[in-house]
Amino acid sequence: MQTTGAKATSFRRKDLLGLAELSREEIQAILDTAVSFKEISTRSIKKVPTLRGKTVITLFYEPSTRTRTSFEIAAKRLSADTVNLAIAASSAVKGETLIDTAKNLEAMRPDIIIIRHSFSGAPHLLAQRLHCSVVNAGDGLHEHPTQGLLDLLTVWEAKGRLHDLKVAIVGDIAHSRVARSNIHGFRTMGSQVIVAGPQTMLPPYLPDLGVEVSYSLPEAVRGADVIMMLRLQLERQGQMFFPTLREYSRFFGLNQGHLALARPEALVMHPGPLNRGVEIAPEVADGLQSVILQQVTNGVAVRMAVLYLLSGGEQSGAAA
Amino acid sequence: MQTTGAKATSFRRKDLLGLAELSREEIQAILDTAVSFKEISTRSIKKVPTLRGKTVITLFYEPSTRTRTSFEIAAKRLSADTVNLAIAASSAVKGETLIDTAKNLEAMRPDIIIIRHSFSGAPHLLAQRLHCSVVNAGDGLHEHPTQGLLDLLTVWEAKGRLHDLKVAIVGDIAHSRVARSNIHGFRTMGSQVIVAGPQTMLPPYLPDLGVEVSYSLPEAVRGADVIMMLRLQLERQGQMFFPTLREYSRFFGLNQGHLALARPEALVMHPGPLNRGVEIAPEVADGLQSVILQQVTNGVAVRMAVLYLLSGGEQSGAAA
Amino acid sequence: MQTTGAKATSFRRKDLLGLAELSREEIQAILDTAVSFKEISTRSIKKVPTLRGKTVITLFYEPSTRTRTSFEIAAKRLSADTVNLAIAASSAVKGETLIDTAKNLEAMRPDIIIIRHSFSGAPHLLAQRLHCSVVNAGDGLHEHPTQGLLDLLTVWEAKGRLHDLKVAIVGDIAHSRVARSNIHGFRTMGSQVIVAGPQTMLPPYLPDLGVEVSYSLPEAVRGADVIMMLRLQLERQGQMFFPTLREYSRFFGLNQGHLALARPEALVMHPGPLNRGVEIAPEVADGLQSVILQQVTNGVAVRMAVLYLLSGGEQSGAAA
Repeated sequence: MQTTGAKATSFRRKDLLGLAELSREEIQAILDTAVSFKEISTRSIKKVPTLRGKTVITLFYEPSTRTRTSFEIAAKRLSADTVNLAIAASSAVKGETLIDTAKNLEAMRPDIIIIRHSFSGAPHLLAQRLHCSVVNAGDGLHEHPTQGLLDLLTVWEAKGRLHDLKVAIVGDIAHSRVARSNIHGFRTMGSQVIVAGPQTMLPPYLPDLGVEVSYSLPEAVRGADVIMMLRLQLERQGQMFFPTLREYSRFFGLNQGHLALARPEALVMHPGPLNRGVEIAPEVADGLQSVILQQVTNGVAVRMAVLYLLSGGEQSGAAA
Repeated sequence: MQTTGAKATSFRRKDLLGLAELSREEIQAILDTAVSFKEISTRSIKKVPTLRGKTVITLFYEPSTRTRTSFEIAAKRLSADTVNLAIAASSAVKGETLIDTAKNLEAMRPDIIIIRHSFSGAPHLLAQRLHCSVVNAGDGLHEHPTQGLLDLLTVWEAKGRLHDLKVAIVGDIAHSRVARSNIHGFRTMGSQVIVAGPQTMLPPYLPDLGVEVSYSLPEAVRGADVIMMLRLQLERQGQMFFPTLREYSRFFGLNQGHLALARPEALVMHPGPLNRGVEIAPEVADGLQSVILQQVTNGVAVRMAVLYLLSGGEQSGAAA
Repeated sequence: MQTTGAKATSFRRKDLLGLAELSREEIQAILDTAVSFKEISTRSIKKVPTLRGKTVITLFYEPSTRTRTSFEIAAKRLSADTVNLAIAASSAVKGETLIDTAKNLEAMRPDIIIIRHSFSGAPHLLAQRLHCSVVNAGDGLHEHPTQGLLDLLTVWEAKGRLHDLKVAIVGDIAHSRVARSNIHGFRTMGSQVIVAGPQTMLPPYLPDLGVEVSYSLPEAVRGADVIMMLRLQLERQGQMFFPTLREYSRFFGLNQGHLALARPEALVMHPGPLNRGVEIAPEVADGLQSVILQQVTNGVAVRMAVLYLLSGGEQSGAAA
C-alpha cells in the first residue's frame, strides 16, 4: 500500500475525539500502526504485553454490543485491564453529573476512558476536564471516529490508496455519526464524497463539508469506488422521515443492479448491524464486492492502534 | 476410577453441540481431561497459561448467572481472555439476524464462542457457519452438553464407573435440556435411564431414546444408583402442566423416605437452582447422599477440559 | 504519618464484614498496607503479580457502578481474576436462597466473594457458611466497611493522625451504612464523632455508639477537623423524612459560610455520588478543603489492601 510518508511521531494527542480535527499525517499514522497490529489477531497467541498494567474503562451511556466488544478485545490483546461500565439512561438521571462521574472514575487512575454518549460533545467535555486519555466511541449525531478509521483502513487495504477515490455514502446522513466521521476522514485523505438519501435525511451543512449531495442512489453510486450504506434506524421510523419501509428500500436500498453503475471493483461497506432487505439486498451484503466483515476485523486493529498511540506508543515496532 | 481406555486423541471436534453425537470414547476423553484439570482449582495459584492469548466470547441470549460464571472462571483459569455479551431478547429483535451477529463476532477473531439461546439448534447453525469453535451452553429444549458432562464426571467420581448404573431423572422432562443431555450421556456410557414425571411433562419420543418411562417417583427411584431431580420451572406454572405446586411436590418431590427405595449409596443430584421444598426436600438436598455442590465444582473442570480440547489441546499433560 | 505501631500480623481475619468488630490495630494494619499499595496506581505499569491465580467474585444485589468498579480495579491491579455477577432483585426472587447461590459460587472455588445486598447482615450469613473470604461492599443500613476505611485513610493522610479529631457527619444518618462504618472507625481510632441531621433522620441508638447528636449543621461543624456530608437519597423523598428539598438544603446543605465555623484546614468529605446544590454547595465540593476525589483514589488502595490481607498477605512488602 502506498503511504503518505507519515513520520513515526505523527500522532501525539491525549484524546481521540473526532476525525474532523485530525490531519492527514495523523490519520495515516493511526492506519500504519493498525496494519502492524492486525497481524496479532491472526496469531495463535493473540496477545502482546504492550499495555500490560494499563487500565482501560469503557463508559457506555447507550447500549452497544459490537463497539464495546471490539474495544474490549483490542484492549485485552494488548494486555490492558478492562473495566466495563454500562450506565442506563435511567440511572444516569439519578443526580450525578457526567463530569462528576468521570472525575470519579479518573480518581481511580485509569489510563484511558472510552465513552459512548447520546449527547454530541460529551467526550470533548471529558477530554477537557480529565488528565487521562478519552476516546469517543460515538457521541450523539456528531462523530464515531474509530468507525471512520476502520472504514479508511478497509478501503486503503483494498484500493491501495485513500486519495482520488469517489466515495458514495447513502442513507440517513442527518442522524449518522458514522457518516460524519467518514466524510471528514475521506475528505482529509483527498477523496471525493457524495451523499444520497431522502431529502428529510440530508442535513443542510453538507456543502460546507465539501460534500456533493444527491437525492438519487443511482446517481450517487455512478462511478463510485466505494459505496457505504448506512443502517436505517428503524426505531426512528415513527418520526416519519420517509413514508414506508418499502418505499425507502425501493429508492435507497442497494441491490445488485446498482453495482453495475459503480466502478468495476467498487467496495460495498456497511457499519452494521444490517437490515437485510431494507438498505441492502442480502446478495449484495454477502457478495464478492462486500467488505463488511473486513470492516469488523479492521475495527479491532484500529482500536488497538488508537489505544496504543494514546498510551504514548511509538508508531514503529508496534507489534513487537 | 476405571476408564474405558480412551486414547489421548479421542476428542477432535471443532464444536461441542450436544452429547447425542458424541461417542463413548469422546465423552471419556473429556472426562479424563477434566479430572486432570480439576486439581488446578484446588491450588493456591489457580491458573495455568494453557490458553493464554486465546479469546473466548460468551454470547448469552437468555439470562444466566451460574453457567456463564462457570464458563468464565474456567476460561480465566486457563489464562484465556473472556468477553461477555448478554443480549436481551428485546434488543435481539432489533433487526440483525443471529448469523450476522455471529459472523460479526467471528470477524473479531475469537477462538471460541459459547452460546446460550432459546431456540433449539441455534448453536448448530453457528457451528456450520463459523470457523471458530462453538460451545452450546444450552439451546432451547434441546441440549446442555456441559451440564451433562459435569453430571457424568460427578457420577464417575463417586461410583467409579459409568456403565451398568440405573439413573432416575425426575421432573419436567419435556422442557429440560439438562434431561436430554443426561439421557444421551448415560445411555452412551452404558447405563440405564428411567424418567418420571407427570404425564404432561413427559415427551412422546422417550422410548426412542432407549429410556424407560414412569409416572411414579417411587417406582423410578427404586434400585437407582443415581437420582437426578430437575428444577421445576415455576415460571411455566401458568401453563398448567400440573394443578398446584403442593400437588407437584407431593407426588414428584424427593424426600428422605424415597431414598430408602434406592440403592444404599445412591447419589442425589440437581442441576440447580434449587426450589427447596418443591422438587426436593431441604434435608435431602443437604444430606450425605447429595452431590449437588460437587456437580458445580465439576462444572468448572469439565468446561476447562472442553475449552482446552476445542483449542486443539492434547488430552495428556493438560494441567502441566 | 504517625502510626500506632501495629505489627505486620495485626489483620488475620477470614472476612471483612464491618468496622464495628475491628480493633485499632487491625484498622491500622489495613491502612498501613493501603499506603504501600497506593503507589502502585501511580506507576506506568499499575499492576503487581501479588494475587495472580486468585479468583475474586463481585456479587451485587443492588445496582452499583463506582464501588464495583473500585473493587474490580483493585483486584485487577493485584493480578487477580475477577468475575462480576449483578443480580437484579427480580431474578433473585426466582426461588434460590442467598445461601444456595453463595454455596454454588463457593463450589467454583473463588478465593474472595465481595457482596452488596439490601439486607443488613447478608454478608455475615455468607461468612459463617462459606470457607472462602467474604467482603461486605454494603449491606442494607448496616455497614460499608471499605468506605469507612477509605475515609480513615484520607483523613490520616491529610491530618497525620486519626485520634483526637472532631468528625462531624451530616445528613440522613439513620439510612446510611457509610455513617455507621465511619462512626465505628473514627471512634475506635480515638476520635470524637458528632452527627447532625433532621430529627427524622437520626436513629435512637446513637448515644450508645458514643456519638454526640445535634439537630444543627452549624453546631456540628463548629470546631470540626472533618466534615463528612452524606448523600441525600432523593429516591427516599416520597417517604417524607423532610418537607421539601429546598428546606433540607437550607438547613443541612454545606456552604462556604459553614466552613468558617470549622477548624481552619477542616476536610470536606462526601462518599458520592454528589447532589450538587442539595447537601453540598458546588463551590464547597470543588473547593480547596474538599478531599472528595482523594477519597475515591484511596478507595482503590484500601480495597487492594483488604483483598491482599484476606488472601493471607503479610502487611510488609505488600507492593514488592
